Parts: sequence; structure tokens; C-alpha cells
Amino acid sequence: MKTIDLNCDMGEAFGAWTMGDDDTLLDHVTSANIACGYHAGDPHTMHRTVEIALKKGVAIGAHPSLPDLQGFGRRSMKISAEETYDMVMYQMGALSAFARACGGKLAHVKAHGALYNMAAKDATIARAIARAVRDFDSQLVLFGLAGSEQIRAGEEAGLKTASEVFADRTYQSNGSLTPRNQPNAMVRDVQTSLMRVKRMVEEGKVESNEGADLIVKADTLCIHGDEPGAVEFASKIRRMLADAGIRVTPVVP
Amino acid sequence: MKTIDLNCDMGEAFGAWTMGDDDTLLDHVTSANIACGYHAGDPHTMHRTVEIALKKGVAIGAHPSLPDLQGFGRRSMKISAEETYDMVMYQMGALSAFARACGGKLAHVKAHGALYNMAAKDATIARAIARAVRDFDSQLVLFGLAGSEQIRAGEEAGLKTASEVFADRTYQSNGSLTPRNQPNAMVRDVQTSLMRVKRMVEEGKVESNEGADLIVKADTLCIHGDEPGAVEFASKIRRMLADAGIRVTPVVP
Amino acid sequence: MKTIDLNCDMGEAFGAWTMGDDDTLLDHVTSANIACGYHAGDPHTMHRTVEIALKKGVAIGAHPSLPDLQGFGRRSMKISAEETYDMVMYQMGALSAFARACGGKLAHVKAHGALYNMAAKDATIARAIARAVRDFDSQLVLFGLAGSEQIRAGEEAGLKTASEVFADRTYQSNGSLTPRNQPNAMVRDVQTSLMRVKRMVEEGKVESNEGADLIVKADTLCIHGDEPGAVEFASKIRRMLADAGIRVTPVVP
Amino acid sequence: MKTIDLNCDMGEAFGAWTMGDDDTLLDHVTSANIACGYHAGDPHTMHRTVEIALKKGVAIGAHPSLPDLQGFGRRSMKISAEETYDMVMYQMGALSAFARACGGKLAHVKAHGALYNMAAKDATIARAIARAVRDFDSQLVLFGLAGSEQIRAGEEAGLKTASEVFADRTYQSNGSLTPRNQPNAMVRDVQTSLMRVKRMVEEGKVESNEGADLIVKADTLCIHGDEPGAVEFASKIRRMLADAGIRVTPVVP
Repeated sequence: MKTIDLNCDMGEAFGAWTMGDDDTLLDHVTSANIACGYHAGDPHTMHRTVEIALKKGVAIGAHPSLPDLQGFGRRSMKISAEETYDMVMYQMGALSAFARACGGKLAHVKAHGALYNMAAKDATIARAIARAVRDFDSQLVLFGLAGSEQIRAGEEAGLKTASEVFADRTYQSNGSLTPRNQPNAMVRDVQTSLMRVKRMVEEGKVESNEGADLIVKADTLCIHGDEPGAVEFASKIRRMLADAGIRVTPVVP
Repeated sequence: MKTIDLNCDMGEAFGAWTMGDDDTLLDHVTSANIACGYHAGDPHTMHRTVEIALKKGVAIGAHPSLPDLQGFGRRSMKISAEETYDMVMYQMGALSAFARACGGKLAHVKAHGALYNMAAKDATIARAIARAVRDFDSQLVLFGLAGSEQIRAGEEAGLKTASEVFADRTYQSNGSLTPRNQPNAMVRDVQTSLMRVKRMVEEGKVESNEGADLIVKADTLCIHGDEPGAVEFASKIRRMLADAGIRVTPVVP
Repeated sequence: MKTIDLNCDMGEAFGAWTMGDDDTLLDHVTSANIACGYHAGDPHTMHRTVEIALKKGVAIGAHPSLPDLQGFGRRSMKISAEETYDMVMYQMGALSAFARACGGKLAHVKAHGALYNMAAKDATIARAIARAVRDFDSQLVLFGLAGSEQIRAGEEAGLKTASEVFADRTYQSNGSLTPRNQPNAMVRDVQTSLMRVKRMVEEGKVESNEGADLIVKADTLCIHGDEPGAVEFASKIRRMLADAGIRVTPVVP
Repeated sequence: MKTIDLNCDMGEAFGAWTMGDDDTLLDHVTSANIACGYHAGDPHTMHRTVEIALKKGVAIGAHPSLPDLQGFGRRSMKISAEETYDMVMYQMGALSAFARACGGKLAHVKAHGALYNMAAKDATIARAIARAVRDFDSQLVLFGLAGSEQIRAGEEAGLKTASEVFADRTYQSNGSLTPRNQPNAMVRDVQTSLMRVKRMVEEGKVESNEGADLIVKADTLCIHGDEPGAVEFASKIRRMLADAGIRVTPVVP
């Protein structure tokens, strides 16, 4: 039986500011990537998000970011391998304390925003993240863009990896996501999105912008919790996957 | 044989800014309280400090603070028990990741600056810290001012505690430290300092400002690493303790 | 003809996080207190808020805070007069640059959150703020709680002041606001609120919790933009004031 | 008579951390670039630095940076023109408040660290900075690397510019500084440095790494205050310039 994990960024409130409807989304996803204070996520939000995710049986993961609250971790920065390693280590540790205090443990790590994109293309950054994850806890699953440097680096480091695909994004012929500033970056039609996801899981293929089929590994699907209609989309995806006989489950069940 | 631990705040650099001579001081103390990013201590500094302390066989501890880089954690803030718990949890976790990555583990926790002072007097804050430490790792030793609410809260929470004394500070008749803004707050004469420490360890007593003897438990002595002459003072203390047949050793050897 | 200013905290978004419906509220108030980056308000939000306020003819003011993004400036901190002076100066300057770039100028200053409350009761803090305002621009109007130390300090410094009253808060017999953590802190009935405001403006009086009349100066009324129903409440207040023949206008028209 | 300005980065302390010997260096330079809180420079440091610089008759300038305390503003970030404009505006405003409170005014603006380097090569960033400076105060002098996009953008915006040269850095044949990570980036011999500066001021020429003469405009010379021997080097430069009959003076005397 085919399986897939549904992951979503969570805990992206900060102090008095809120973001997304985590409580509801946690009923629909199987993995929660929880902000660790560098782009979002004050300690209280981290604590509460870990608590609810554990209660709902959702796998929890660290979602480390570049240090940029003002830019929500979305602005790439020139950082060294050592800086990358240390900032990822810091954030994993901080989140894991809440998991431990709540009687749970971290299941995975997924870099956030600009750091995710940097790790997809830059082997130095990708390896620094993989080493930090391995040195912290070699049982953790490393999430990364399917076919990216992050996945390669994770495998190289001996980690279990999860290749991530996107329902609402298009792919270029080299396998990378079409940048958001290009007109055809997004798949806006829900039905098309659903069909693409189905094919990625069942056949391991997705059509690129140029019309050719790309081979794509689909271990986990990203649900964008901060977009309007996220909850509805997540429940549609789950129904479609159920109808297709695909089981939705965390990467390490 | 009488014993005492010598502890010192460490890792208080931040980015391009340095503070103290940690490398040398680590040859003289038995416990290092390492900054966790809230008052000082960027991830790289944390990593490096943990690494050197472990290599020199010094016990490492988290040194959590109020979130105040600009004020170096020295300005008291009105925070709730829940905020206290969460910010201490966050910082312990962050530091412990570096310990784990370096093959070591945390031995103790000591609140920093204004948070230390708040926890000495305010039972709510003291208990929130004690609960965070216990929920994170009940084997950790909680450091606090001898005779303070922090020590009481640690015992209440079932933690091993270490009562801290100061060589260079005077005591009021109620057992609290004389506030720094008072003229007689400091013991400036090194020889007097040494004698006071000796008596605290050997007899469990110290003379208050008013001339009466106070009962004081002296499990660990604080060395102020950021003061000029810190290294020299530390080595004098060690020689004096050795001469007096007092063994210098971490709280949990 | 009686007059009153309606002021509202604005520009309290930060990066990806939003707060309040500033655009609509700016149609209803006459003074905007704009966050300056210490509790909220990234530079882009500051710029945009200044721009819209100027376009709508709303007087703009700096809303300086304690440095506490995580706590939204609501946690009091122990700071010196000098620290107070410098942090207020910094924030006024930052905001005034946007005013200048947009062809406008600051009209007033109102401390935010915990700093506002500290300045109401603590003459040292109140005077430090007043001196910073005077040294930066002696034409600025200093807002403060009616009858508070802030108003006294402003007058002492030779500044024009605006005494602020609250429609939705009750007053203690000493003239201070009932702390929010007490059950009777809020006036929840809109009609009662309106009547209290009317009386404060027309008669300069408000009934305290204990039933006695307090003398209160009402130069400006605070509208809480972050509460549900804020826009509706603001428009009701304006209608009521219009019906009562009270003109709504900035402190310095 | 030939003239040149000597500028130095100043006010780069932060809270409890110090950097450089500003007091002494201010006796040797004619322009101080003062940190504005984004890479260094808490409000108190800004205030004190402005005060001393004014007292010593040194021209004061804003030294805006990317928002990166941890990285001291030395890590380039991908930011938009709008973000650049707004963050420069914020920082100029903040610093100018202290100038105003001390009875002085800003004379110039020089971007810091990574932002300086970005503005040297990227016309979009360079123009955003130039527009912010012009919109804030069109009398300000914009400092930038000689021959760079920053100088072009400043001229385009109608600003007075100051072309900056370096005594201790080598130049590539395209006129850009040799990156610091290359072995021949620095001119380590003081006598060679002095001769190069003299030639840049007198002849407007400097020899590139490849041995060819580059045309270079030398309005202001950067003194690196954070390097050991900075004070000694500055006083040697001044003596050499005096001996050569070159007058050291701010850009706008």
C-alpha cells in the first residue's frame, strides 16, 4: 500500500501576533514543523504547539530558520557552514526541550523558508544542516525538497530522509520549484493540484512546466497553513488520498 | 573532607563582541554557567564554550536569562510563572543540544542576572524555574543563592540543589546580598574575601554587615569572570582552599 | 465649543504578522500613535502607516516602548532614567524620519504599554520621557494618563500635554485605572461607556469604582484598535460626540 | 590645496559589550560613522558617541546596516529596494534624534558592512539608499566606495557624494576591493599604505593587483577602528598628510 506524510508549518505565532489556524490543521496533517524562535515561535507558542500536536498524535519536527524575525526567515543570508550548523543545533535543542517536558520526542527536522531553499541548492549549507541533525540525534528524519542537495546531504550523513513535494507549486525541467515571482509558479486549480499529488505518490512522476515528466520521490507533502482555504484543501487532499487507497501516515509511523 | 564547587559565568560573548577570558578561567573553575542566547551567547559561542569546558573536564550548566541582550539580562522584568518556565525550558534545551553534539551533558542550571535575583526572592518565579528544570531533566542540579526562595523551590521540586555563596559580596542580616548600589556591597580586600570563603566552607558561617553571624550553606562559590583580576583571584582561592584541606570539585563529581 | 481628540495605537504589525484594521480606524480617529520598532512596527509598517495617516489627515505621534517584541512592550522592566531617555529618543527619531520623508511631521508622543503605566506612577521615568520629548522637539504634545506623573512631568518640562481618558476602563478612587486583572476593570456596556465619555468631556468628571466623582481632564480619548468591534465603537463614539455638540479634533489642530 | 576626510566606524559597542577606542580615535578622524542599532549601537552608545564627536568637532554620520546583531551586519541578505529604503530611513532617523538633542546635525551617511558592499555593486540597493538619504535630508553627503554603484546612485539622486578609498586594502583591475578571503587582500606594510594614500590623494591613482594604474577619486579615507594599532596608524596617516601639504577636513567643512 502506498503511503504519504502530510506536513505543515506550525507554531508561527510570536508574542501578541497570531498566524494560521494550527489547532484545526493539526486534525488534518501527520507531521508538524514547529518554529523555533528564529523566524517565529516564542517559547510559549512552542510549548503550546508541541503539547497540542502530541495530544493529537501528530509527529513533531524542528523548523529551524535564519535569524530574521522581521523577514520571517524568508530572506536568504550569506552564512558559513559553521554558522548554519550552530544555528540549526540551537533551534533543534530549544524545541526538543518542550517535547521532552511534554513526554514526547522530535521526529524530524525541516529547514524553513530561505534556509530551506538555500539547502536545496547549496551543498555546503545542506551538509551543515545534515551534520547538525546527525550530531544531535541520528534517529531524526531530515526533510528536504525532493531531488535536492538537502536530500543528498542527508543520505550522505547516514540519515533517514523524507523527500518533499508540493501540491500547489509547479516544477521546472531541472526538478526545482518555479520561483514564486514567476507567473506560472502556482497551481491554483484545486482539482489539478489533487491530480498532481495523486500521480506523484502513485507513479513518482510530475509534469514540468515544459511538459516533460519528471521523476519525483514523494515521501511527504507540504500543506501551506498560512494560505486561505488551507484547512479545506487539507481535508480534500485527505479524502482524495483515501479514495485512491493511499495511506496518510508520518514518515516514521 | 570538606568540598566546594567553583562556578563562573561563561560564554558571554555575542557575535563580534567578546567578554572575559573563558579559556584561562576554565583552568580554575569546576562548573561553567554558559549563556544561552537571551542575554549573551550566540550559537557559535555556545558551541565553542561547551567544547572547551568538556575538554577541560569542567561541569557545564545552562545560564538562562530574561530576554534582554541590550541590558545583558540585568534589568528585572515583570513576567508570569508560565513565561518564566517557557523561557528557561527554551534556553536549557538550546544549550543541551551542543552538550549532546559534543558528547557531554548538562550538569546544572543557574539563572542569570536579574532572573537570578528575582528567583532568590519571588517564590513564584523560583518555582517556575524549578519545575522547568525538573520537567527537562530531574538529574540536573539547581544553583541558587544560599538560603533563597530558589533553593527552597528546588528542594520542593525534588531537585538536588547547590547553595551559592559569594567571596566578594557582603550579606545583610536577613541573609540576602547587600545591593550593589550600596557603598558596602563589595568585599574589596582579597585577603578578607579568602578568609570569609574559608569560614563559609569550614564553619557554614559568614558575618553580616551588622556584625552577627549568619548560617550559610556553601556548596558552590561564584567567581566573577568579567572583573579585572578574575583569573588571579580564582587561582588564589584555589591555593587557599587547597592549603585549608578543602577539595574543589563539581557538585556532582 | 468643547473638543476632544480620539487617539488609537497603530502600525502594530511586524514583518509577516498583522494587527488591527488600521486603514479603517484611521477614518475614525484624529491622532495615530505609531509603533516604533521596540514592541511592534518594522520599518516598512512604520512607513506605510505614516503615509496613510498623513493622507487621511490624522495627526501622527511616536509610540515608544520598552524593548520587548516577545512581550509586546507589556511587561514592565526596571530601567534607569538615562535608559528611558535614550530609548524614547531613538524611537521618536526613527519614526520622525518617515514623517519627514512623507512631507509631514510628528505631532505628539505617547508611551506604550508598560512604559505608559510606569510613566503614570514613577516620576523618574515620567521626567526622563518628558526631557527626551523636549530635547527632540519642544513643539510635540506629550500624551499621558489624566492626572498622572507623566502629565505633571510634561508640564514641568514646559511641554504641551494631553490628558488621556479611557472609555472602556474604570477608575479607582485615587484616579488611577483599575488594573486589568481585577474583575471590574472594564466597562463592557457600550452605552455606559458613551455616557462616561460624554460626562468626562462636558463636565470633567467620572465616577470611580467607589461611587465618588473624580475630577478628570479629558483632552484625548483612547480607542483600543486591537479589540473586536473597535471600528464600530469608534464610529458610535463619534456620532455620540457629534450629537452632543463636541468637536473631534487633534490636540493641536 | 588638496584635502581629504578621514572617516572611522564608531559607536559599535552594544549594551555590556565594548568595541574599539572611540574616544582616542575621535582625536584623529574628521568624520564618525555611528552605528544605529542594527549591527551595533544601543541607544545609550549612540547618544554618548554623538555627544563626544560633536564636542571634538568631528562630523557625524549615520552608519545604517542590515538587521543582524549576531553577524555584526557582515552577512549579506537578499532584501528588496523597499526594505532597503525603509531600514536606512529608520536608522538615519534614530541617529539624527541624538544629534538634534545634542544641538548638532548629521553630515553624512555611509552604509555598513554587507550593505556597503551590496550597494557598491547592486544598483537597485544603491539607488534605494540614495533615495532614502535624499528624502530624509538632501543636504547629507552620501559616502560610498570610489567608482561604485553607490556613488553613481548618489549623483543620480542629486546628492553630494564622497568617494571612499582604503589604505589597507588592495584593488582589483575593475576598481573593486580584493575580497578579504584572498591572500593579497590587505596591504600590511604601513609605509606602503601611506604611499598609496598619498598617491590616491595627490594623483588620483592607485596601482591594481595586476600592476596597472587605476583612476580613483579619494574624498575620504577609511580608518579601521577595530584593528589593533588603529590609533597609531591614524596618527601616522595624519602626519604624512600634513608633511605632504594635504589638509585633513570633513567633506563639508
